[in-house]
Amino acid sequence: MTANAERLSRLADHALSLVRREIRAMPGYTPGEQIPGAIKLNTNECAYPPSPRVMEMLGRIADNSLRLYPDPVSRKLREVAAARYGVSPDQVLAGNGSDDCLTILYRAFLAPGDRVICPWPTYGLYDTLATLQGAAMTTTPFTFSEDGKHWLVPPPLPLDPAKMILIANPNNPSATMIPVDELRRLADQTSGVLVVDEAYVDFAGDGASILPWLDQHPNVIVLRTFSKSFSLAGARLGLLFAAPALIAQLMKVKDSYNVNVLTQALGTVALEDRAYHEEVVRKTLAERARLENALGALGLRWPESRANFLLCDAGDEAEAVYRALKREGILVRWWDTPELSTRLRITVGKPEENNRLIDALKLLLGAVAT
Amino acid sequence: MTANAERLSRLADHALSLVRREIRAMPGYTPGEQIPGAIKLNTNECAYPPSPRVMEMLGRIADNSLRLYPDPVSRKLREVAAARYGVSPDQVLAGNGSDDCLTILYRAFLAPGDRVICPWPTYGLYDTLATLQGAAMTTTPFTFSEDGKHWLVPPPLPLDPAKMILIANPNNPSATMIPVDELRRLADQTSGVLVVDEAYVDFAGDGASILPWLDQHPNVIVLRTFSKSFSLAGARLGLLFAAPALIAQLMKVKDSYNVNVLTQALGTVALEDRAYHEEVVRKTLAERARLENALGALGLRWPESRANFLLCDAGDEAEAVYRALKREGILVRWWDTPELSTRLRITVGKPEENNRLIDALKLLLGAVAT
Repeated sequence: MTANAERLSRLADHALSLVRREIRAMPGYTPGEQIPGAIKLNTNECAYPPSPRVMEMLGRIADNSLRLYPDPVSRKLREVAAARYGVSPDQVLAGNGSDDCLTILYRAFLAPGDRVICPWPTYGLYDTLATLQGAAMTTTPFTFSEDGKHWLVPPPLPLDPAKMILIANPNNPSATMIPVDELRRLADQTSGVLVVDEAYVDFAGDGASILPWLDQHPNVIVLRTFSKSFSLAGARLGLLFAAPALIAQLMKVKDSYNVNVLTQALGTVALEDRAYHEEVVRKTLAERARLENALGALGLRWPESRANFLLCDAGDEAEAVYRALKREGILVRWWDTPELSTRLRITVGKPEENNRLIDALKLLLGAVAT
Repeated sequence: MTANAERLSRLADHALSLVRREIRAMPGYTPGEQIPGAIKLNTNECAYPPSPRVMEMLGRIADNSLRLYPDPVSRKLREVAAARYGVSPDQVLAGNGSDDCLTILYRAFLAPGDRVICPWPTYGLYDTLATLQGAAMTTTPFTFSEDGKHWLVPPPLPLDPAKMILIANPNNPSATMIPVDELRRLADQTSGVLVVDEAYVDFAGDGASILPWLDQHPNVIVLRTFSKSFSLAGARLGLLFAAPALIAQLMKVKDSYNVNVLTQALGTVALEDRAYHEEVVRKTLAERARLENALGALGLRWPESRANFLLCDAGDEAEAVYRALKREGILVRWWDTPELSTRLRITVGKPEENNRLIDALKLLLGAVAT
């Protein structure tokens, strides 16, 4: 090593040491795998394309929309969202995906050492964001209902001293629901804010959302995403609903121009094309029922799904099945963690994708059984 | 007030009190005004549209690109950027605008109480982000060179104990440059990281960028944006260049899917169409020269500009001129702060926009003078 190379290496080590300790120590969040050409049943995207009106809008985007900064507060989009969801625009914040909304919440509420609580297992990003923020996380395991079909939040969920309780409902990866009444009781009991991440709620049927009760619970914050039922995962768009006074604070925390001009326009059109959205949900639920019949016939079991995926119990063979499917070009999600290592999370795909999965599993599970 | 309304109001106050104190206390960053139909010379966007190849690409975006999550690490874009800028892809991180890159840096390096230093006045977001992160900020005033044409960083810039020194170069709002050699000396002297925000460097001529020296300074981080010379402010795209070990840490901090699929595709094409980019820069510089002649003839003065805007000294009439221009449908930037209240920042617009500005100023400055 030359003297200069040694000096640079020493300087590089020093620069690295300037990164905050908790970040150097963490592994980082692992998004789902992406393999070109594979059947992607591992990240719970929608099987069907976005509204044709979304694609039309994309073709109408003019030079000037790209050249100039976007509306920093996504006014038009928030007005359309407010009208659709029965709130006022000042109760809505738009994010660069609901991940951005989550980041905003962590940065707004959690000083280092402050506590966030969530049932576990759930969306892994909740934990990653706590580490990034230097916040403390308490998880509490889901329990099963007597019929084995539901994951329940164990009463009592430890409430305090939590600044924030975070519940995905329907939950990811279990696809199970906590009834709205139970969440409302939780909101009344906690001295913190209750964040309900409703990424999958459009697949959960009527009465599943806490959003209609927002005005009765000033400490409730609701998240929605366009990555699932609106088929816009690639565009990055999430919505956050809360009391106007909270929205005003969160607006200070978000990046000034956090949602690009294309996504604002596409999201607005997607919200407006309500008939198409309902059709996509209906088709997804019909396909979920068909997939459930086929997987049930193969002896697989899962908690009752209220989302566009199933968390199948695959026992000790879960990892082997995951790897075998991957060799076939079919991606499902498997986690190398004690609480999930016997399970596979399978997204409801297009009919032909589900057929490929069912055929592959028939062969595999037959082979595994022998 | 009914009992329930009283209860809700009390709960709302409590929920608000859960927001971190520093955030409640801050006013929030104010982006430039947006008035539909106005001539926008207030936010330093590019006067010319993005490459025709960008618009072509937009038309080719397929359903599937929108339906599925984007590449979390923007691989293709980073490869093209690396080839263009003479670095390796693992020295590049892509952000949802360079604002996102800045947010990532603050979150990665600055624990509450850690110090960031920047010359002042500069991009206001640097200060906002420090408050959001609970970091301490030290600013040090720019001084003028003897000929009054340059803003200089006062030697010595206070260096320590700073985790991060942040310098926009060319600086916003002064449009002035610090020579690369001086920045390299600063990098050698500080025990922190030196972040050089080169948002406007494409307008600054050859030899203005510190990027070619990246490998010699493991503590230097360079930011670029697509919002200026690439005419893609609406798409939100920024690049961050640093040593691979730092990039690996910053990747953990960014949101998993921070750059949407459309913007990744458009940014890649914009980088590839090098001839168009050079033409836009050339046209902007020619128009800047023409604007400078006209404004100089009106008796206005500004520090020598190395960017696509001028920071004009308009004396005590600055606010009046700003308001009068606004009534004419022409937006320029004026700040109600002691260090900038006598100045107007004027973006170089399209020829016809600059003509409108010049005509309006002729009338106004004549009127003000009488």
